Amino acid sequence: MLKVYEFKGFANPARVRIALAEKGLFDKTEFVQINLPAGEHRSPEYRAKNPSGLVPALELEDGTILSECSAITEYLDGLSGETDLTGRTAIERARINMMQRKIEQGFLGAATDFFHHATEGLGPDVELYQNADWGRHQLDVAMKTLEWMNGVLEGQDYFAGDAFTIADITAMAGCALLDFLKLEIPAGYKNMHAWHARVFARPSAALAA
Amino acid sequence: MLKVYEFKGFANPARVRIALAEKGLFDKTEFVQINLPAGEHRSPEYRAKNPSGLVPALELEDGTILSECSAITEYLDGLSGETDLTGRTAIERARINMMQRKIEQGFLGAATDFFHHATEGLGPDVELYQNADWGRHQLDVAMKTLEWMNGVLEGQDYFAGDAFTIADITAMAGCALLDFLKLEIPAGYKNMHAWHARVFARPSAALAA
Repeated sequence: MLKVYEFKGFANPARVRIALAEKGLFDKTEFVQINLPAGEHRSPEYRAKNPSGLVPALELEDGTILSECSAITEYLDGLSGETDLTGRTAIERARINMMQRKIEQGFLGAATDFFHHATEGLGPDVELYQNADWGRHQLDVAMKTLEWMNGVLEGQDYFAGDAFTIADITAMAGCALLDFLKLEIPAGYKNMHAWHARVFARPSAALAA
Repeated sequence: MLKVYEFKGFANPARVRIALAEKGLFDKTEFVQINLPAGEHRSPEYRAKNPSGLVPALELEDGTILSECSAITEYLDGLSGETDLTGRTAIERARINMMQRKIEQGFLGAATDFFHHATEGLGPDVELYQNADWGRHQLDVAMKTLEWMNGVLEGQDYFAGDAFTIADITAMAGCALLDFLKLEIPAGYKNMHAWHARVFARPSAALAA
């Protein structure tokens, strides 16, 4: 039995939920809620288990804690012996890793910075340092990355080529965060809209929300 | 023949140089200098080759461009069939990926933010947006991560366990950037100092500088 510490409905936990569902592991996982706005990720109980306090985190049967969504997804993908989410050959793995990282840093991460710095974020008890100008700058970065992402999808169905991968999962989490922030993908980004309809029709997307 | 676009002496190019040297590929690589302070990474010539303009980038024989140091390293590591830098089993890969990412984001990335935002960075022609308060905050983050890294090394020689991996390469680049910024690893961080002596004695370190 896998155990995942998460806060349902948030962007990063959604990434691990989608990966679990894609790998057929969702029903073999116990989910434990850590209330982020209430600061539960900073509680002594959770810190004793997971010193970084990060959510989501995967606990293995031997008590090992894995954090960082890309690392958790790599682990889940490797369990099956069929590493379809993170790639099989050296060039496939590198290309998927590259796309995942560009989308993580330039889109999901930048939008997350906007949320934490230029909105109330998780509230004053949790957001101990805010820099609104940085947050607004990062929203510009996120929207520019979105334009680039629309271009990447020209002639291909998914961000790393013709198959669904971890790069798409990261982008889905970014889109879910835009939704939460009531921000829209510009209407002219036709490839992004087609991709959005395609990936959010997957059964895994329904389990993420 | 591999071709790497880089700017010698900078932190991210050093990561790829170390990976190439560790994999025995250094002498099989042609290095092309892209002068970052002069803005050559934004030139039409380089953009035509590498639209993201990022440095370093690896060009494969078929013209494919890979950017993002972790992706480039994963590719180089996979070429040999012996993926010692990025891990062999699912749990090994996940643990190394996790450590690499924590050090990349919390140490190297945060120190890089300090460089770009709270110092002159690459100069006024290149640094089109600076936020000094954010830069100073990120230096705090980098130094807190360094304290955590010192703790990780308690009882182990390398960041992901008992073998040198990509996580150590990322940390080496962070230390090189601290050096450049004339910032020191606090004297009390004994594990960090022992690790520093250990990894910078490797032949690959001499090729990175």
